[in-house]
Amino acid sequence: MLESTVAAIRPLDEAAMAAARELQGRLTKPAGSLGALEPLSVRLAGLAGGCPPPLPEPAAVAIFAGDHGVHAQGVTPWPQEVTAQMIGNFLAGGAVVNAFARQAGASVTVVDVGVATPLPADGGGDPAGPRLVRANVRTGTRDLTVTAALTRDEARTAVQTGIRVAGELVDGGAGILITGDMGIGNTTPAAALIAAFTGVDPAEATGRGTGVDDETYARKVDVVRAALNRHTLDPADPLGVLAAVGGLEHAALCGLILGAAARRVPVLLDGVIAVSAALAAAAFAPDAVGAMVAGHRSAEPGATAALRHLGLDPLIDLGLRLGEGTGALLALPVVTGAVRVLHEVATFDAAGVAEK
Amino acid sequence: MLESTVAAIRPLDEAAMAAARELQGRLTKPAGSLGALEPLSVRLAGLAGGCPPPLPEPAAVAIFAGDHGVHAQGVTPWPQEVTAQMIGNFLAGGAVVNAFARQAGASVTVVDVGVATPLPADGGGDPAGPRLVRANVRTGTRDLTVTAALTRDEARTAVQTGIRVAGELVDGGAGILITGDMGIGNTTPAAALIAAFTGVDPAEATGRGTGVDDETYARKVDVVRAALNRHTLDPADPLGVLAAVGGLEHAALCGLILGAAARRVPVLLDGVIAVSAALAAAAFAPDAVGAMVAGHRSAEPGATAALRHLGLDPLIDLGLRLGEGTGALLALPVVTGAVRVLHEVATFDAAGVAEK
Repeated sequence: MLESTVAAIRPLDEAAMAAARELQGRLTKPAGSLGALEPLSVRLAGLAGGCPPPLPEPAAVAIFAGDHGVHAQGVTPWPQEVTAQMIGNFLAGGAVVNAFARQAGASVTVVDVGVATPLPADGGGDPAGPRLVRANVRTGTRDLTVTAALTRDEARTAVQTGIRVAGELVDGGAGILITGDMGIGNTTPAAALIAAFTGVDPAEATGRGTGVDDETYARKVDVVRAALNRHTLDPADPLGVLAAVGGLEHAALCGLILGAAARRVPVLLDGVIAVSAALAAAAFAPDAVGAMVAGHRSAEPGATAALRHLGLDPLIDLGLRLGEGTGALLALPVVTGAVRVLHEVATFDAAGVAEK
Repeated sequence: MLESTVAAIRPLDEAAMAAARELQGRLTKPAGSLGALEPLSVRLAGLAGGCPPPLPEPAAVAIFAGDHGVHAQGVTPWPQEVTAQMIGNFLAGGAVVNAFARQAGASVTVVDVGVATPLPADGGGDPAGPRLVRANVRTGTRDLTVTAALTRDEARTAVQTGIRVAGELVDGGAGILITGDMGIGNTTPAAALIAAFTGVDPAEATGRGTGVDDETYARKVDVVRAALNRHTLDPADPLGVLAAVGGLEHAALCGLILGAAARRVPVLLDGVIAVSAALAAAAFAPDAVGAMVAGHRSAEPGATAALRHLGLDPLIDLGLRLGEGTGALLALPVVTGAVRVLHEVATFDAAGVAEK
């Protein structure tokens, strides 16, 4: 399933992109005056294989949750139980991602791929409310400073869970997928993945996550450096890299991205967890980058290194560092607006407006 | 009316801001993890005088339209008739601002404060559709390189038109006002206003507007410099500055901003025309800045100079340079999201989530 998904990912459609560029030039606005929205609309036409591409709606947020053996190294002051507690908050609709999803009209699907502590009940039973998918591969990764975080089979199972969730969401009508994540300690494996795939130093890849103090930050950089030294990491073997230093939610997000790209549906990336997973997806299938839209620039420095490596410019840069999918949800109206222009704006000819 | 409006503009409410800060600290997210949204929510609480402040909805875009005597100096390749033709496009719902307003659920009000050529009919009669307000002060300004663009009385009438429109929109239920503008040639008076109020050189205040070539750009800088030399401009006399080098839409936007601030309703600023008007509003009433939210960073360099002078950080920076209110509309969901967090997100206590 992983191999067939990767094989299905193709380049953007040049004819559709040319048609979108030509249409942008006839709409009632000065050429180029919509800035970054214009090339974004062109790229989404190339992904859809037609112009105009469909409006990216409805949106579906998939929040993959997992725990991390590296938590034992003291990389965060938050207790591991908060991962499961926050799933309860997501299912009750009380987290920031829920507020932003309601505002954007997006559905929320929470996927347990690796939570270590007992999960709450499945929520209020509201069919339109947040949904829990139970797909636990193991109850948290192993400590990546000691051994591989996952076996290759575990990593593959998580990637394939992400592919499956992408397929189900697209089959259910989603026009765009949004990456979400929850996992206490998950910025540490994200930093290791970013260092492994981009080659930047662990100090550049590592940030303060939820806001750790100087001492914890120094320990976190040491942990990432130890992980990079401990394992032989070949960027041409993304499954091996995910297994050695990744997390189950990172692997599953990689799968979600690959699944979206294979279905030619855009995937809006949130913060540092998402872009670390996107590096793995791009290593599996370079053309998958065509389906990726960078929602925002996380305050985590590793996110900037990853976006640079992927060649993606984020739509929003507001110093967010919450994860869950929150930054991507804030950027969604920009993506929708970019496409809407191609659907709804009049041409100079049709509107009877003179050109310069 | 201008004087009573200015007198009604008061500082932000410190108690409401303290309450919002305290609430932000109890919500289920790491402290500070929502970046710029957190201080924005605090400021809007201060504006409303309570916590949480009301959600900023529905939004109302007010597009003020005018023409410019300086068009005769060849500062733009677009014919002056395009101002009236674009009003027709707004009323027919075919412009980018209409597409973005539909997406955001915002109303569109077009106000003729100074169009030089005949206007189209009032539109399709759809009561929910764009509305035209006829408040023409004069059919375009005079050429600011030759004489004052407006008399003080004309400038005052335009400012008061903006105040009146703000009051009508707020009375009609608007929770946030959005600045829009249309006027072929209007980036030239905007540059002159920005140079006058901030003290930056005309070369820094002047941009390429709709995308003029090098020769036209050089002429435009010369025109702005000539206007600055021709007139005695006292930043402490904003009405005098607006009259000498402004435009009727700039003056009316200044009034809209003052009207919003007096009613303690936020006003979301679009691009370079809006921020040049905001400088005049801040000169009338420094506390008006508390009601301003900078929607985006226009590609026009003068916009950055104006935002710096006002101490405002824009929410979006995507290289837009279209005007009409388009950049502000894209930023609206960020503003709404910032406030929504205070309404809808659970506290650690209520959600049963452990703190670090």
